[in-house]
Amino acid sequence: MLTDATHAPALRSWVASANLPGCDFPIQNLPLGRFRPPTAEGAETEPPRVGVAIGDQVLDLKLAAAQCPWPDEIYPLLEPLTAGDLANFMAMGRPAWQLLRAALSVALAEDSDQGPFLELCLHPQADLTMLLPCVVRDYTDFYIGIHHATAIGKMLRPDSPLLPNYKWLPIGYHGRASSVGLGGPLRRPLGQIRLAADAPPVYAPTRRLDYEMELGLWVGVGNKAGEPVAIDIAEDQLFGVTLLNDWSARDIQSWEYQPLGPFLSKSFATSVSPWVVSFDALAPFRRPLQRPAGDPAPLDYLDSPANRAHGSFGITLEVWLQTARMRAARLPAVRLSHADMAEAAYWTPAQLLAHHTSNGCPLATGDLFGTGTLSGPGAGQGGSLMELSRGGREPLLLPGGEQRCFLENGDTVALRAYCEAPGAVRIGLGAVAGTVMAA
Amino acid sequence: MLTDATHAPALRSWVASANLPGCDFPIQNLPLGRFRPPTAEGAETEPPRVGVAIGDQVLDLKLAAAQCPWPDEIYPLLEPLTAGDLANFMAMGRPAWQLLRAALSVALAEDSDQGPFLELCLHPQADLTMLLPCVVRDYTDFYIGIHHATAIGKMLRPDSPLLPNYKWLPIGYHGRASSVGLGGPLRRPLGQIRLAADAPPVYAPTRRLDYEMELGLWVGVGNKAGEPVAIDIAEDQLFGVTLLNDWSARDIQSWEYQPLGPFLSKSFATSVSPWVVSFDALAPFRRPLQRPAGDPAPLDYLDSPANRAHGSFGITLEVWLQTARMRAARLPAVRLSHADMAEAAYWTPAQLLAHHTSNGCPLATGDLFGTGTLSGPGAGQGGSLMELSRGGREPLLLPGGEQRCFLENGDTVALRAYCEAPGAVRIGLGAVAGTVMAA
Repeated sequence: MLTDATHAPALRSWVASANLPGCDFPIQNLPLGRFRPPTAEGAETEPPRVGVAIGDQVLDLKLAAAQCPWPDEIYPLLEPLTAGDLANFMAMGRPAWQLLRAALSVALAEDSDQGPFLELCLHPQADLTMLLPCVVRDYTDFYIGIHHATAIGKMLRPDSPLLPNYKWLPIGYHGRASSVGLGGPLRRPLGQIRLAADAPPVYAPTRRLDYEMELGLWVGVGNKAGEPVAIDIAEDQLFGVTLLNDWSARDIQSWEYQPLGPFLSKSFATSVSPWVVSFDALAPFRRPLQRPAGDPAPLDYLDSPANRAHGSFGITLEVWLQTARMRAARLPAVRLSHADMAEAAYWTPAQLLAHHTSNGCPLATGDLFGTGTLSGPGAGQGGSLMELSRGGREPLLLPGGEQRCFLENGDTVALRAYCEAPGAVRIGLGAVAGTVMAA
Repeated sequence: MLTDATHAPALRSWVASANLPGCDFPIQNLPLGRFRPPTAEGAETEPPRVGVAIGDQVLDLKLAAAQCPWPDEIYPLLEPLTAGDLANFMAMGRPAWQLLRAALSVALAEDSDQGPFLELCLHPQADLTMLLPCVVRDYTDFYIGIHHATAIGKMLRPDSPLLPNYKWLPIGYHGRASSVGLGGPLRRPLGQIRLAADAPPVYAPTRRLDYEMELGLWVGVGNKAGEPVAIDIAEDQLFGVTLLNDWSARDIQSWEYQPLGPFLSKSFATSVSPWVVSFDALAPFRRPLQRPAGDPAPLDYLDSPANRAHGSFGITLEVWLQTARMRAARLPAVRLSHADMAEAAYWTPAQLLAHHTSNGCPLATGDLFGTGTLSGPGAGQGGSLMELSRGGREPLLLPGGEQRCFLENGDTVALRAYCEAPGAVRIGLGAVAGTVMAA
């Protein structure tokens, strides 16, 4: 379990808000993201910039490169970042990412000589329009939440909820890259649905709109076609982690998905959080790969001692809901569920990348993986309404007296995630939220 | 059925090879593609260029824009093409595509004043390295070959080969954009396969490598998220047609594909032909949408009088195979199968685009659709070895005495396609070929 000076719990930042308890972005985190800088009214919008989230502020790396002295070896790394191009930095690989992380940790620390320069390079997060970290190339959605797969499988096959392949390979499918955005208003999609079993389908707004609580994994370094990536180095090719909400229309899905899988039931919107948290920031939260006794050992290409010992991560995910009526009544959002990735995920990030390339499939900088819905094992830990309402049969009771089986117009869904571990400073992934609009 | 002067059968080109019978690229075709120009030995490779296939030559549009006078309204269209950027031209929309087509038809015609200038702007096709028409954004593979779906369905469900949704919507799934290339050597992929039913899987080279005979449809004009495209204008957003070989590993597929569809069994390689044939070139080959009596009428969003009357196309597709042993014995490639799109496809290109956007999914310039395997109704018309060998149980006998259930190393598979109709000059789509290499 690799931790270094950048994780030291005693480390505090000269950005005061970064030292507050419960802050998602303390100096031990240092996630990267892209944003559009604030402009004076009437001025032309500026090109995208890259920044680091620190407390409730963002360090603008274009300004920071120009206005602050850095160690020599940092300038080549700042070059793409100064140009607002996170993808070209992602392509530089993990040694570059670690070098920048270490330099930022020094520069943002309480006693840093660089502080007086960098104070001038901060924007309040609240003032910025965030952008996707980069152009999304190919998007793959996995299905590694074993409690989710079991719960959904039980609705279809009560006696054998998991199919025979589930414990041998990470099930996944290609998703729609053009659907990926940062949340915000979400128009209720139309599609073919059947209003009664065996009735002819109609083209109508979905009546079973749902979310899925997932993590997103961003590929930093790709591989050539025909060249599988070994499990030992697979995680090093992943740039970092965000939240991911795989919005789903369950009625469109159940009608369309046989025999080739989900299609339009998922491709209308996929939302990710804007700050990419590195695997280096996650080091204190590494956990062993958990497998029930008697489960098959992974095949060699999906197995390594390091992956078994600490290939997974203790990341708590949460879903929060606020309806229009709750908003009007000033009722706060209610937490619908929560789960821990290490408990929910049957496969690790490294295994996903190794499996994805095992046939020679080329990955590229900017590819995105979704983990699939990460549900916990307990009641109320389902990562989707499909699970929480047992297929729409048992409505959830909300504060204020409303009930929900699926999402209604005006509902705001927010995903949050954070990591906690003994002896480590809590870090967060931030949030991603979307509000359902009428079709 | 729109045809105009660009289709006139009497029209001949000053490029002599374009007038030969059986030529894929007569002056009535005029497909666009990207290539790397020939360079002197040792010289640096040049940036991509855009060209028009004419006979066995390619008209280099960068040279043609510089060295030949054009009508004023053509120069803005030539701007992206001169820069080697086909995507920006694709984004201009059908009126621009038609304007350029008409101008090229005049310029390449036998009596053209532009001929003496353009003679200096030709490259022999054989000298060029072809490139993909543009960066492939999202790739979607459909399943509209009803005889293929029926044949595959029969292997799994003899009594009800087609699922209930098949005749209501064009089944499709997201494919892997990074897998798309132009053919050439193809490394046999490894993956999880089971050597016996119920045996634990092993990670090994596929033993059931197959091709799928499809058409590729390239999106020229996209749509905004949340805004479905009406069937009436859907075809206008498609830039054109190529061949597409959806290479498939059947043993990886049968183990991995439940419940979310094909994944690594398809993502190792997808091959398209380099010349994009426009829907305007295909006008003389339009055909009515064929549906057996008693089949459900398409829902309104998938239906229009024009689509019913001439939304499909008479395009003959063929698969040719030459094994290493046949090559050594100088035996020519053998045609394994052939099918007519109008007979094979249950849905039209316009219906695919309308359905794809029916949930508001945003399409973009450079998106690619595969039709799915286009098999004919007859024996020997299967568009994959899976069908021709009846699931690997009935080997095909090849010239020279070899047998094949699935592809072996050294096998070269070539797809070809062409259109013929009374009173029209035959046009072709060219070819795409790949040779299987050892894992």
